[in-house]
Amino acid sequence: MGNVTRSLDRSGCEWLQYDYRSALMTPDRPGSFSMWRYRKLLPVADGPVRYPLPIGGTPLLPAPALRKTLGTPRLWIKDETRNPTASNKDRATALVIEDGLRRGMDTITTASTGNAAVATAFGAAAAGMRAVIFVSADCRPEKLALMAQAGAWVFQVRDGYAAAVDLSRAAARSFGWLDRNTGANPLTIEAKKTVAFEVWEQLGRRLPDLMILPVGDGPTLVALDKGFTELVNCGLTTRKPRLIGIQAEHCQPLVRAWQDTPAKPADLDPTATVADGIAVLRPAIGEAALTVTRQSGGAMMAVTDTALLSAVSTLADTAGVNAEPAGAAALAGLNNAIAHGLADPSESVVLLVTGRETKASGEPAEQGRVTLIDTLDQVEHALTESH
Amino acid sequence: MGNVTRSLDRSGCEWLQYDYRSALMTPDRPGSFSMWRYRKLLPVADGPVRYPLPIGGTPLLPAPALRKTLGTPRLWIKDETRNPTASNKDRATALVIEDGLRRGMDTITTASTGNAAVATAFGAAAAGMRAVIFVSADCRPEKLALMAQAGAWVFQVRDGYAAAVDLSRAAARSFGWLDRNTGANPLTIEAKKTVAFEVWEQLGRRLPDLMILPVGDGPTLVALDKGFTELVNCGLTTRKPRLIGIQAEHCQPLVRAWQDTPAKPADLDPTATVADGIAVLRPAIGEAALTVTRQSGGAMMAVTDTALLSAVSTLADTAGVNAEPAGAAALAGLNNAIAHGLADPSESVVLLVTGRETKASGEPAEQGRVTLIDTLDQVEHALTESH
Repeated sequence: MGNVTRSLDRSGCEWLQYDYRSALMTPDRPGSFSMWRYRKLLPVADGPVRYPLPIGGTPLLPAPALRKTLGTPRLWIKDETRNPTASNKDRATALVIEDGLRRGMDTITTASTGNAAVATAFGAAAAGMRAVIFVSADCRPEKLALMAQAGAWVFQVRDGYAAAVDLSRAAARSFGWLDRNTGANPLTIEAKKTVAFEVWEQLGRRLPDLMILPVGDGPTLVALDKGFTELVNCGLTTRKPRLIGIQAEHCQPLVRAWQDTPAKPADLDPTATVADGIAVLRPAIGEAALTVTRQSGGAMMAVTDTALLSAVSTLADTAGVNAEPAGAAALAGLNNAIAHGLADPSESVVLLVTGRETKASGEPAEQGRVTLIDTLDQVEHALTESH
Repeated sequence: MGNVTRSLDRSGCEWLQYDYRSALMTPDRPGSFSMWRYRKLLPVADGPVRYPLPIGGTPLLPAPALRKTLGTPRLWIKDETRNPTASNKDRATALVIEDGLRRGMDTITTASTGNAAVATAFGAAAAGMRAVIFVSADCRPEKLALMAQAGAWVFQVRDGYAAAVDLSRAAARSFGWLDRNTGANPLTIEAKKTVAFEVWEQLGRRLPDLMILPVGDGPTLVALDKGFTELVNCGLTTRKPRLIGIQAEHCQPLVRAWQDTPAKPADLDPTATVADGIAVLRPAIGEAALTVTRQSGGAMMAVTDTALLSAVSTLADTAGVNAEPAGAAALAGLNNAIAHGLADPSESVVLLVTGRETKASGEPAEQGRVTLIDTLDQVEHALTESH
C-alpha cells in the first residue's frame, strides 16, 4: 500500500487518504480468466466471442478451516457457484449459445430438472435468444418463476422428465432449434471440460491426486475426464486424477451398476432425495461415466440425505461457500471415501461444488409463459398464439 | 481453435477431438482480477492476502439487448451479484476481515438488515473468524437461516434496527471485536471504492458520464465518489462522472432532503417497500452522500415499487442478470432520469447492480444460534453459555 493519512470528519467518521500518484494504480490490464481462455481447445472459430456473460474462471479455494476440520491439508474446493446463474451448467449453456449465435440461430431448447434450465433461460436472455424449456409437471414453482422471469417459454410435460427430454429433442429437430440437451450436444461436454483445465492451471499446472464430484446424467464427470485426457494428449501432464462420482442414496443407479448389484426400488426414487440436481433415474451418458471412472482408478459412491445436508452446513460454516445439497455432494463423498479407504487425507483432493440454489425476486411469472402440455403440436400452438 | 475431428460413439453421442499439442494451451497464467489488485490504494500492508475468498473483479456487462430496448447504446451494467455472497457488501467484509486477521482478531460484528449480515457471516466462516450479527426482531426467517448456516451468532434486537446498530457498536467496544458497521469503519468505504477503479479499467481507463446506483445508508455512493476522486488525485483522469442515487418511494429520506421538502410519513416507511436492502430511515452517512451527489452534478431520485419490480424483470429477460429489487434500482432510476431530462440516452452510463437474494439450503438453523435480546449483558451471557 501507499502512505496512508487518517482523519476524522465532524460527525466522527474516519477517512483515509493516500500519497496519490499514478504509480499507485496497477499498470497491467484486468485479466480475463474465463472459459474462452481455452478456445484453442474449443470448437469456436477465431473472432470475438459474442456471448455477453463472463463464464468460468471460477475460484479454486484452499478452505483453510475445512482442511483443519477434516485433517486434509491439500484439499481444494472448485467453486462453480461463482458462475452467472450459480452453477456449472452456465459453461455448457454459454458454448452452445456462442455456437448458435455464430450460425444465426434464434432459439435454444433443453429439458431440465432445474439448474440447466435456469442457466439456459438467463443465458439466452443475455444473448438475445429465445429459450424454450421443457420440465416435468412437478417442477417446483420457484424454479418456474425464475425461468419465466428471464423470459423463457416453459412447457410442463404431463408425462414427466423422460417425456420432456423427448419433446425438447423432437422440437429441436422439427423447428431447427439449438439442442442443449445433455448427451445430445457434444458442446456441453466441450464446455464442461474447461473445469479440468482451470484446476490444472490453478494448481500451478499440476493435477490433483483425486477429484470428487456429484453425478446425475454423467456429463460433468465425463467432461472432466476428457479435459484431463486432453492435457495428457497435449503433452502437458502424464497422470490423470482418480475420479469419485457421488450419487444420492435414494437415487443411485450408477452406484448400483458400479457395484454390479441390482437396484432396489428404494435406490431409484428421484423424488425422495434433497439432491434433486443429481436425481436422475436413467443417466443420459451413464455408461461413459462408469467407464472413465473405472479407468481413472476411482469409484462411484452413494451418500445419505443427512450427509448431504450436513455437507451443506459444513461448506457454509467452515469454507464460507453456499451450496445446494447436490452441489455439496462432493464433500459428503470425501468423508465416505476416507472412511472406506478410497481416499487418503494426505492426498491432494479437489471437491467440485457444482451449484447453489438461485431465487426469483420481483413479479410472478407472466401469464401464458408457463404451459402444461402433452404433445409437440401444443408447443407450436402456444408459440404461434403469442404472436 | 485447433483442428477438430468429430466422431459418433455406439450410442450416437458425438465427440470432438483436437490436433493435440502443448501450444493449444494458453501460456500465460490465470489473471487475478480482484479487489486486491488495487492494494496500493488500500490500507493493506505488503505480504500475502489471507482472506480466502476471491472478491471483486466483477463483470462490466455491455447488455446488448437492454441497450436496444432502452435506446442507450453506451449503457453498461456493473454486476456486483458475482461476488461470493452475491452482493457488493462482500468487498467491505473482505477488507475489514483482512485487516482483522493481520491484527490477530477473532470476532467481527455488524448490524444489518440483510446482505451485509450474510456477507459477514460467510466471509467470517471462510476466514475462520466468529461473526456476531445484530438484526431487528422482524428480520426475515430465511435471512436468519442463511446467517446461522454459516455459523454466525445472530441476535434479534427487540427494539429494532437502530438499537441493533447501537448494540453491535457497543459490543465491538466492550469486547474488542472488529466493527464492520456502516459509518463506523472507514475500511468499508475503502473497499467499496474499488468498484470505481474497476469500472475505469474495464472501460479502457476511462470513466462514464453518469453512474446510477441504489442508496440506503450512503457508503456505496460516497465510496464511488472517493474512488473517482482518487483517480483524479493520481493524475489518471480529470473529470468525474455524475452520480444519481436511487431510493424507494416508500423510504426516501435522502430524496426529500435533496428536494428540501419535508418528508411525509408515507415517504419514511421502511417496511412498505420491496427494496428492503435500501430502506433506511436515518442513513448513516446521508449528509456525505448528499454532498458528493451535489458536487458531481447528479441527483437523488425516488422510484416506485412497481418500477423496481419491473426493473428486476427487465434485467432478467434482457440482460440475463438476476437481481433483487434494491439491486435493480439503478435501472428503474435510469428510466426516471431520462424522463426528467437528468440523463441523455446517448451518454455513457453505468448502472450499479448491487445484489441478488441468496437462499439457504440444507438444515434449519441450529438451536441457540439465533437469540432474541434487549441488552449487551444478554449477548455476553449467550456467548459464554455456549462454551
